[in-house]
Amino acid sequence: MTKTIQTAVVGVTGYAGAELARLLLNHPRLEGKPPVFAGRVEGKDLERGGIPLTEIHPHLEDNDGANQLKMEPFSWDLLSARGVDVLFLATPHEQSRAWVPEALDRGMSVIDLSAAWRLTDPAHRAIYAFSDEGTAQAAAIQAQAVYGMPEIYRKQIAGARLVANPGCYATTVILALRPLVAAGIVDLERGIVADAKSGVSGAGKAPTAKTHFMYAADSLSAYAAFTHRHTGELIEQIGVSSEEIVFTPHLLPIPRGILATNYVHFKEPQTRESVAAVYREFFAGSPMVRLYEKSLPQIQYSVRTNYADIGFQLDRSGKRAIVVSCLDNLLKGASGQAVQNLNVIEGWPESEGLQ
Amino acid sequence: MTKTIQTAVVGVTGYAGAELARLLLNHPRLEGKPPVFAGRVEGKDLERGGIPLTEIHPHLEDNDGANQLKMEPFSWDLLSARGVDVLFLATPHEQSRAWVPEALDRGMSVIDLSAAWRLTDPAHRAIYAFSDEGTAQAAAIQAQAVYGMPEIYRKQIAGARLVANPGCYATTVILALRPLVAAGIVDLERGIVADAKSGVSGAGKAPTAKTHFMYAADSLSAYAAFTHRHTGELIEQIGVSSEEIVFTPHLLPIPRGILATNYVHFKEPQTRESVAAVYREFFAGSPMVRLYEKSLPQIQYSVRTNYADIGFQLDRSGKRAIVVSCLDNLLKGASGQAVQNLNVIEGWPESEGLQ
Amino acid sequence: MTKTIQTAVVGVTGYAGAELARLLLNHPRLEGKPPVFAGRVEGKDLERGGIPLTEIHPHLEDNDGANQLKMEPFSWDLLSARGVDVLFLATPHEQSRAWVPEALDRGMSVIDLSAAWRLTDPAHRAIYAFSDEGTAQAAAIQAQAVYGMPEIYRKQIAGARLVANPGCYATTVILALRPLVAAGIVDLERGIVADAKSGVSGAGKAPTAKTHFMYAADSLSAYAAFTHRHTGELIEQIGVSSEEIVFTPHLLPIPRGILATNYVHFKEPQTRESVAAVYREFFAGSPMVRLYEKSLPQIQYSVRTNYADIGFQLDRSGKRAIVVSCLDNLLKGASGQAVQNLNVIEGWPESEGLQ
Amino acid sequence: MTKTIQTAVVGVTGYAGAELARLLLNHPRLEGKPPVFAGRVEGKDLERGGIPLTEIHPHLEDNDGANQLKMEPFSWDLLSARGVDVLFLATPHEQSRAWVPEALDRGMSVIDLSAAWRLTDPAHRAIYAFSDEGTAQAAAIQAQAVYGMPEIYRKQIAGARLVANPGCYATTVILALRPLVAAGIVDLERGIVADAKSGVSGAGKAPTAKTHFMYAADSLSAYAAFTHRHTGELIEQIGVSSEEIVFTPHLLPIPRGILATNYVHFKEPQTRESVAAVYREFFAGSPMVRLYEKSLPQIQYSVRTNYADIGFQLDRSGKRAIVVSCLDNLLKGASGQAVQNLNVIEGWPESEGLQ
Repeated sequence: MTKTIQTAVVGVTGYAGAELARLLLNHPRLEGKPPVFAGRVEGKDLERGGIPLTEIHPHLEDNDGANQLKMEPFSWDLLSARGVDVLFLATPHEQSRAWVPEALDRGMSVIDLSAAWRLTDPAHRAIYAFSDEGTAQAAAIQAQAVYGMPEIYRKQIAGARLVANPGCYATTVILALRPLVAAGIVDLERGIVADAKSGVSGAGKAPTAKTHFMYAADSLSAYAAFTHRHTGELIEQIGVSSEEIVFTPHLLPIPRGILATNYVHFKEPQTRESVAAVYREFFAGSPMVRLYEKSLPQIQYSVRTNYADIGFQLDRSGKRAIVVSCLDNLLKGASGQAVQNLNVIEGWPESEGLQ
Repeated sequence: MTKTIQTAVVGVTGYAGAELARLLLNHPRLEGKPPVFAGRVEGKDLERGGIPLTEIHPHLEDNDGANQLKMEPFSWDLLSARGVDVLFLATPHEQSRAWVPEALDRGMSVIDLSAAWRLTDPAHRAIYAFSDEGTAQAAAIQAQAVYGMPEIYRKQIAGARLVANPGCYATTVILALRPLVAAGIVDLERGIVADAKSGVSGAGKAPTAKTHFMYAADSLSAYAAFTHRHTGELIEQIGVSSEEIVFTPHLLPIPRGILATNYVHFKEPQTRESVAAVYREFFAGSPMVRLYEKSLPQIQYSVRTNYADIGFQLDRSGKRAIVVSCLDNLLKGASGQAVQNLNVIEGWPESEGLQ
Repeated sequence: MTKTIQTAVVGVTGYAGAELARLLLNHPRLEGKPPVFAGRVEGKDLERGGIPLTEIHPHLEDNDGANQLKMEPFSWDLLSARGVDVLFLATPHEQSRAWVPEALDRGMSVIDLSAAWRLTDPAHRAIYAFSDEGTAQAAAIQAQAVYGMPEIYRKQIAGARLVANPGCYATTVILALRPLVAAGIVDLERGIVADAKSGVSGAGKAPTAKTHFMYAADSLSAYAAFTHRHTGELIEQIGVSSEEIVFTPHLLPIPRGILATNYVHFKEPQTRESVAAVYREFFAGSPMVRLYEKSLPQIQYSVRTNYADIGFQLDRSGKRAIVVSCLDNLLKGASGQAVQNLNVIEGWPESEGLQ
Repeated sequence: MTKTIQTAVVGVTGYAGAELARLLLNHPRLEGKPPVFAGRVEGKDLERGGIPLTEIHPHLEDNDGANQLKMEPFSWDLLSARGVDVLFLATPHEQSRAWVPEALDRGMSVIDLSAAWRLTDPAHRAIYAFSDEGTAQAAAIQAQAVYGMPEIYRKQIAGARLVANPGCYATTVILALRPLVAAGIVDLERGIVADAKSGVSGAGKAPTAKTHFMYAADSLSAYAAFTHRHTGELIEQIGVSSEEIVFTPHLLPIPRGILATNYVHFKEPQTRESVAAVYREFFAGSPMVRLYEKSLPQIQYSVRTNYADIGFQLDRSGKRAIVVSCLDNLLKGASGQAVQNLNVIEGWPESEGLQ
């Protein structure tokens, strides 16, 4: 470790921000070099030096030095003065659209956890209605963005200045399906179904009617049928058309974790071994994916880890498979993957600080 | 049933309101005579005839006729035009303070689920800071109010025009302790402890940081130590001084139900039988209290019923007892007790429509 | 009500048995005529007149007269002596295979909640490995059995002596899919997916590693992929081949409720109205199915009711639909449907005692 | 680190065992020196080299090297052959009574997580009915045992050969109350109440009626009133008589975490500062206790850490206090405290491997 880098986190107040702070504070390559935390909190006067991090997230008290850290008032001058090398944005989409150009101009690398720069097809971006859509600047930035899934774009991420960190549902489904589709064995004409279920932290920290304990507890509900924002990511990254995949998210009465049950038909009969071989080859050199060879993964075994767990079951004919994938929506589905991207950018072991 | 009465509910949008609507819609003495629902919903135009009740509470669709009912824009004229006899107020405290005088003037009886008229000692009311505190009108109204716990004030409720429906925590603790204190067997000098735990519905329907699923789930927290608003009710109704009782509420990660674990010292050694006799005598003729003679009650057995369940355990010396009481905070702790009060007022069997 | 019938329940110790007892005790047509409860409890001496029902199920104490009832030692003489007309079996499959012949011989009608007589295709029964499979007696009994889903077989149930009450998952999925398949609008070549999720009560009352709180809480898991026992019911009752449907059950961390997310392709583009018309026609005269016209159903609104709730969403092309169905696995998925079948047999209103 | 020690864990199959394995596998002072895991699993043939650790606890797969480890058939020869220095027993009480003498004879130090050696007063041990009670050997062993709470017995633990690791409830209550009682400020005549609530993992891994999801979920129950086994530990370690304290445990519907709400009267009025000073002095040099100075601790902030969190609230008179303490029952309440004791024995920093 000849060089230590300086990180910064903007948007630390949410759940993903809290996990990002925790991971960076404990990252062995960043020892003694805590991130700069910058932001705003409604109704709080940040002007006098910021808010203690442990006031925003009492959970963080368990981390070395977190007691001394503060979230400071955001300004570009602050970030420059501190010599920030890598900027993590856990901010709303539109804010990331607005801030990334300046951050790049100022020489920082950016790992953006929002959906601002994930999609290459303008049709898929339409759902976000970015206010700068269609401008030359936005197009130029988008051209530099790399989709931040190391299992697919490891090389491109290594040299990227802007990493668009994937969505949580998208990560869960893409890792299950892209290997099979890329191997050319899936009968796309018969359609793929991705039925996904997420814990409540995926709905964000803002108190709403749907995050109320009384709404979520003891229930299950499907939502955004055919219209969820992550669908564009699935189409672009799995390599299918919108007619070839259906994706339905559900709200689970648990704090964290996503499980997707994915259904595919094969062109030709497969065997357990032939399918396992496809996954093994695809994920060779990918330390954060665990292939379940004998059973199906469950949320309880992937939660609070950065692993994506994948298992599958064939029918007797070998023509159909159920692929179950699961992960922690705040780790491999957000902040853990962001740190994984940092590791790739810096040339560190990919799972550093994530086990 | 020679006369059918007309009820009305103001404040049907909350959890207590929903339960009240359900109970009144299914009450055998009110068959074919659904309540008038009157109120306001923020951001909703009530002017054109109101909002369907099942839009506010999808759960109510399971009840006869609920599909045809609406919450109408509140006005005194509406209530008078419909010939309302008994008005249920599931409204904020201050609103109940303001509306009860007019309702009484217009000849209606009122069962008020707020804390507006529960407390006789001005010192206990101070915590609510009612804007009309100290006025002659408020004093006159307060003088008429009867604390709506039929197990104690059955006779007074029967003739009352204004019933102050008790708090949920207060009901749980008072029913456990008043019989013992009233029997004169408790050593008050050594102090009573009431450690109570409530499900999240007790915190109301408004989405807040504390009703967020992520805050309540998988946790437990004590709050309002020494300062909870229901303490005044405990003092007045159990018959103790503030130095003689400590009450601590906790937020449980469950939708509904309250359990209180109450600790008392006796002046003289008691036996299981002597204590049971005190309870049996106190609750003779009280169909909504179940005395557990062999085990301790649990939330799961009282939830979704209007029963208050009470059980106790003595130590070997017979000098100390743990009394466990539990009930459903939305039923015996709120709307069920309100209907019980209606039954008492009308001279119907006390448990009518509640089993 | 010129004639009152005598019911009996064998197998009251489980969750379905408890719900069945509750429903029958409160059924208006059975007033004053409680069921005979017969059975065995391991380690308990039933010989001296039985076990109080409320000892087995403390929840039942809330029901009129339950305090006086006992579960008596099972014998055919007992049932005959009490003049049992309708026998409910909430017993293991093999026991139902063994007991139904004698019950029919003795002139009782049987509503069997097990899977013993649900399947007409021997290949589908193979998974249960019934010990009397292939005997002439079993074939003769099977020939009389009617699949107990009133929405499909109302007429046949009315005249049946043996009703095979459907499985909980099967009910959820069949009600969502049979109307569409029967209407001939589904493109079966492209395959149907039924992704179902059930609360823990579906796993039974026996304490096992998988019903332990620590296993189920905060998690989600898929199981029995391609091999669940209810698959045969789906195939026979929806009218598809095993190649045309995939069914995956999941264990949800909630006490009760099932939600199935079903995926179909249509042969020709449909509209919201054309699909709704199919459902409306199919369920005309079916009071226990609620069609959601504007939103998707959720577990929280069907739980503790006997309704099956169905809603759907089309994609833009009208060629694909997501159909969400949900119900309470212990009511419409078991005991509620059993009582619904009783109502049909007796010619009573189908929803009697179920609202 | 001049010397590396060899640890062994007997009884790794339970929840405490799993946490102990995880902690020891990640302990920086034991790097490359994984524990020997020895034991038995019913119905499993351990003879052929043992069972993979990750088969017993899939969660452990996330830990370096866990994939290669096995639980081997227990024998004294195995432990001696591997040169075990410190033996952790997460075994039933009676087994610990039987095995500790031999372990000590063979020169191992023992950290025993059972209750076998925690109690000095024979009257308190009576509840466990140890089969060797009253023997000279047992008395000799007991005389060597040190109660494993470093916050109280740090010096004695440092030189101990046998550490009796405290109970989970006991740890929670003792840390809250001993400092106040030891300071002489508590009015013991008026009695102390300790009302404690624990998550389901505290009830063990064996599937029972009470650990069934359907029993624990959505409920709360008190149990073992006046008779819980941990009461003896409270009396001995807080320094009170059995008449001076009441302890009631409750079963919370959450996986892990304990919160105790403790009630005391003071002899003389105290201030927030005077009480805080007592705690600060008592816990000076205790890195695993966090004193909450402004708010009350909650389960969510101590769970998955080895901290015991303590906060308190005085009434206006300063004569009464509510002390809330909470911790993770499997960490500070069991395995984390065991590792903390290992650290003390070895002279390592007390929180090593625990943050």
